[in-house]
Amino acid sequence: MNITQVSQGLDTIWVVLTAAMILLMEGGFALLEAGFVRQKNAVSIIMKVFVDIAFGALVYYSIGFALMYGSDKGNLIGITGFFMEGDLSHLPANISHDTFWLFQNAFVIAVISIVSGAVAERIHFKAYILLTILMTGLIYPIAGHWIWSPNGWLAQLGMVDFAGSAAIHALGGFAALAAAHLIGPRIGRFGADGKVNIVPPSNLPLASVGAFILWFGWFGFNSGSTLSATHPGIGHIAVTTMLASAAGCATCILFTMMRYRKADPPMVINGALAGLVGITAGCAFVSDAAAILIGAVSGIAMVIASEKLESRKIDDPVGAFAVHGISGTIGTIAVGLFAQPGATKYAGLFYGGGWRLLGVQTLGLIVIAAWGFALAWLSLQLIKKFTPIRVSRDEELIGLDVGIHGVPAYSQEHDFLDVDKLRNPS
Amino acid sequence: MNITQVSQGLDTIWVVLTAAMILLMEGGFALLEAGFVRQKNAVSIIMKVFVDIAFGALVYYSIGFALMYGSDKGNLIGITGFFMEGDLSHLPANISHDTFWLFQNAFVIAVISIVSGAVAERIHFKAYILLTILMTGLIYPIAGHWIWSPNGWLAQLGMVDFAGSAAIHALGGFAALAAAHLIGPRIGRFGADGKVNIVPPSNLPLASVGAFILWFGWFGFNSGSTLSATHPGIGHIAVTTMLASAAGCATCILFTMMRYRKADPPMVINGALAGLVGITAGCAFVSDAAAILIGAVSGIAMVIASEKLESRKIDDPVGAFAVHGISGTIGTIAVGLFAQPGATKYAGLFYGGGWRLLGVQTLGLIVIAAWGFALAWLSLQLIKKFTPIRVSRDEELIGLDVGIHGVPAYSQEHDFLDVDKLRNPS
Amino acid sequence: MNITQVSQGLDTIWVVLTAAMILLMEGGFALLEAGFVRQKNAVSIIMKVFVDIAFGALVYYSIGFALMYGSDKGNLIGITGFFMEGDLSHLPANISHDTFWLFQNAFVIAVISIVSGAVAERIHFKAYILLTILMTGLIYPIAGHWIWSPNGWLAQLGMVDFAGSAAIHALGGFAALAAAHLIGPRIGRFGADGKVNIVPPSNLPLASVGAFILWFGWFGFNSGSTLSATHPGIGHIAVTTMLASAAGCATCILFTMMRYRKADPPMVINGALAGLVGITAGCAFVSDAAAILIGAVSGIAMVIASEKLESRKIDDPVGAFAVHGISGTIGTIAVGLFAQPGATKYAGLFYGGGWRLLGVQTLGLIVIAAWGFALAWLSLQLIKKFTPIRVSRDEELIGLDVGIHGVPAYSQEHDFLDVDKLRNPS
Repeated sequence: MNITQVSQGLDTIWVVLTAAMILLMEGGFALLEAGFVRQKNAVSIIMKVFVDIAFGALVYYSIGFALMYGSDKGNLIGITGFFMEGDLSHLPANISHDTFWLFQNAFVIAVISIVSGAVAERIHFKAYILLTILMTGLIYPIAGHWIWSPNGWLAQLGMVDFAGSAAIHALGGFAALAAAHLIGPRIGRFGADGKVNIVPPSNLPLASVGAFILWFGWFGFNSGSTLSATHPGIGHIAVTTMLASAAGCATCILFTMMRYRKADPPMVINGALAGLVGITAGCAFVSDAAAILIGAVSGIAMVIASEKLESRKIDDPVGAFAVHGISGTIGTIAVGLFAQPGATKYAGLFYGGGWRLLGVQTLGLIVIAAWGFALAWLSLQLIKKFTPIRVSRDEELIGLDVGIHGVPAYSQEHDFLDVDKLRNPS
Repeated sequence: MNITQVSQGLDTIWVVLTAAMILLMEGGFALLEAGFVRQKNAVSIIMKVFVDIAFGALVYYSIGFALMYGSDKGNLIGITGFFMEGDLSHLPANISHDTFWLFQNAFVIAVISIVSGAVAERIHFKAYILLTILMTGLIYPIAGHWIWSPNGWLAQLGMVDFAGSAAIHALGGFAALAAAHLIGPRIGRFGADGKVNIVPPSNLPLASVGAFILWFGWFGFNSGSTLSATHPGIGHIAVTTMLASAAGCATCILFTMMRYRKADPPMVINGALAGLVGITAGCAFVSDAAAILIGAVSGIAMVIASEKLESRKIDDPVGAFAVHGISGTIGTIAVGLFAQPGATKYAGLFYGGGWRLLGVQTLGLIVIAAWGFALAWLSLQLIKKFTPIRVSRDEELIGLDVGIHGVPAYSQEHDFLDVDKLRNPS
Repeated sequence: MNITQVSQGLDTIWVVLTAAMILLMEGGFALLEAGFVRQKNAVSIIMKVFVDIAFGALVYYSIGFALMYGSDKGNLIGITGFFMEGDLSHLPANISHDTFWLFQNAFVIAVISIVSGAVAERIHFKAYILLTILMTGLIYPIAGHWIWSPNGWLAQLGMVDFAGSAAIHALGGFAALAAAHLIGPRIGRFGADGKVNIVPPSNLPLASVGAFILWFGWFGFNSGSTLSATHPGIGHIAVTTMLASAAGCATCILFTMMRYRKADPPMVINGALAGLVGITAGCAFVSDAAAILIGAVSGIAMVIASEKLESRKIDDPVGAFAVHGISGTIGTIAVGLFAQPGATKYAGLFYGGGWRLLGVQTLGLIVIAAWGFALAWLSLQLIKKFTPIRVSRDEELIGLDVGIHGVPAYSQEHDFLDVDKLRNPS
């Protein structure tokens, strides 16, 4: 046993364990979303999370990974590594290609899971499968290449995004916005008189536990993005992650106590997540104090964005855009303000680095947001040519669980159902 | 600090962390099973999981471990290490005996948890405690010795089973089949006219989250089975685990969409698990492509097996046999087809190794399945002499939660109950 | 890459991963408590857990950590390290100060979460925020300094408390007792005629899964307290943790079967936790057999303490005092009996070390329990001068979820609510 073997083993288990933590976040997404939507759609949203993992992993393995991390072509796209074959010698050497893929795969699954919440309670299941394939096979990998491949054009300009406020969250959040807007609001969400109606979350304890699981996974998400256990910043990354989420959550508690005269549970839950999303880009680059500020701003912005979205009659059942799109935006741009000297090539504006990094981060964010929005929009327009993207009015009213999947989320029946009825819903 | 100390520390935390992940799978089993059964039995199934851990750990510590990993006697059984005392110098040297036990203990608890689902909603609690003691103290350890002790007779023949498609899942699955068959179907499950009746799962979101937790734990289960962080295959193991589960889940989504005209939630949940069970034996030995194939076949086979079991009037409330027994069988035999040269002593049939490995794997599977089935059957027959193995008709109809444990799983009461009534159920 | 870098990386990921596991325990506390209380208060108890994390982390970062782990003043208190600045060179050198803080932060959040359960269903939210600030900023850190700072006066006397049966659990448990006593029982808990009334847990599956998550996290809690991956005791610590919890759980199963003629689900759940609390002080110091004994005694003592507390008309909705206060007491004192020679400076009474260690442990326990009880009492008396500590009778009757947070935990509504009604509850 020599030092190289031990060092490689150390990095390998670090990446495998944090990848597993990120995959567990899918359980968190499932609970969060199932708790936020109505009972009649709780299973359907979870089935989408299964689609995220199952189709996401297979498509990213076959195609997406190559486009994202294959040998660079023109700073725009990767062209090797389909089915993990071909030249991948440019990948980090201390862990195997398998291990590297596993971690990146957990990321792509998170992206599409962000979208799943925004289209909850009305997207058609078949259309969602196709959207998943396009998101994980093309849309995310290409944008990801620009930021995270060393030869990507945004990376070349100096854009930094440590664990993906832009590449994961803003991309997913703006794709979610496009999808929510195109598919339209749920029946009854906005009254004929312009009145905003709120759906009461069906199961807030479940949603809360979803948030705790996401919180846990985020330590894997951010700290694991070092891809090396000997990266000197791991402790700092974990601490900024902790502080920003605490600040996002505490701020939402206090802010909603002032604004609504009560600590609003869904906003508190999303406030913690907003803090996490906000710090994801800068966790390795900013100070503890900046992390707290980023988290606090992300929390408040999430609340306001949620309200604004409603007033514009866009229906995002779980707040996916407010949490991921808005906080992802804040987090990406905040790096341009707060990056500490030496942490990134160009320091942030407040640390003597001038406008350079802020400009690049802003440009990158706009590009990613526009790409996510436009491609999700186009994808759904394309899918619409083949299969309906929205369930029928009857299916929506009865709920997607019984309407599409033939079974309710919760059953208090003590008796049995006829097998033919269950397996062959008419 | 020298390289040996660091290497030992590295292996130690790898095994401790993955063991903890496997133990968390008990929470997954509990949720999965509580969600699949009727409300009136949700607590009783979870109480069985507590029995699995509590009695399983104490019995395996006292007796089971010695029979499984003690010094070999006649290639059949271990004879040292009761209460972790006596000669255990043959165990892997880079981790302490404590650490090794911890990992193996997590495995034995998984085995009995497989059985708990098949006998849900009708086994008597006392009988289940006794069955747990026999399974974790005798039945699993002896079979485990044959496969996993280097001197075990199946190991000597060349049988390989990396993380236990046979030793854990087929054994548990066939024991579950015997138990389900012997105890008989739930009242009303099969109509007098031969009609199959289906129980609607009481809480599908809980069941789904159970699956996500199991999925997370499986990365510990398979990758952790290296018992060493410097094992070069860790990344590959994690990737085959990911791909097979994705394939099992995706296949079940598509297959049930064709077969039942809907993506069937319980089958999708079990499809992911079937893929995981299927790859457990071969995760370190087969290619990525083979892993996808094994996962896909396991998923489809699970659906068909579930139907076949029903048509034979065997009542397995959570699909324990279809998931663990059938996919465990497929996974064990698949190693004989797909094992890559160099990965195992004999390569698989499709990789030029001839029939040798396939024959050994098939023999081993038959032995383990027969052992699991027969011993579980005999155990219950023995237990029956001392205490009823099935609850009374009244207890079954009212549900085991109130009938046996005196408390319902879910209570919407805003008022209080009389302490005497709760603590002294008549 | 040299051995020092690898060793530091190894210790870093060990501490970060175990810290994340301990933070996940907050999800466990949330589920456990939400499942044990009535539906109408399930959200309010979870909101308190968000307060624990959000305010706990920020206050401990600003103030608490300095008082606990800053440079010692008079063996009583730390005085450097506010906002993690100033001299902290006395901290362990192999991990960064950030990493060390992250782990300790997970501990402080656990302490306040213990209290949250005891005051469930009646404490006012604002008062709880203030209590959290005092507990995490002052009460716990000062007591923690006495035990865990090498210069603390109890540490200097030779008190040992490996992962905190005293510093975490007894402190939290006795603070919980004070709070529960001062705030008074829930309306209806004790009848006018002195009759004890029991609240049926609203969601036992949730509570059970909370326990499984806590169980998982405890392996991080105890093993991670080594703060070093090359600590030779990690495997042993994990095994004693496993055995004690199994013994606590198994004992409660058998004991309640004898005492109540049924395996009582809430007691079984708390029995596993009692075993875990009991072994927390001695996990690194006692033998496997002693661990089993400590776990078993902790389990039985928890059941009896729960009954006694009721007979004294103290209302602790989740059993926080019985689990954490009583088992923490047992665990702390048990070290004085069972500490093995060489494991601690003075061996335990039964291992030839005489009365010295037993005396110190008993003294330390009394000091910590009295400190926790008295300071929590005084804190609430102080808070009462500014804001009510108990909700109004109407709010309590309608439940804190709707009464304080304006939203029910579970909603079966298929329709929408008016936004103005939800956001501006009158």
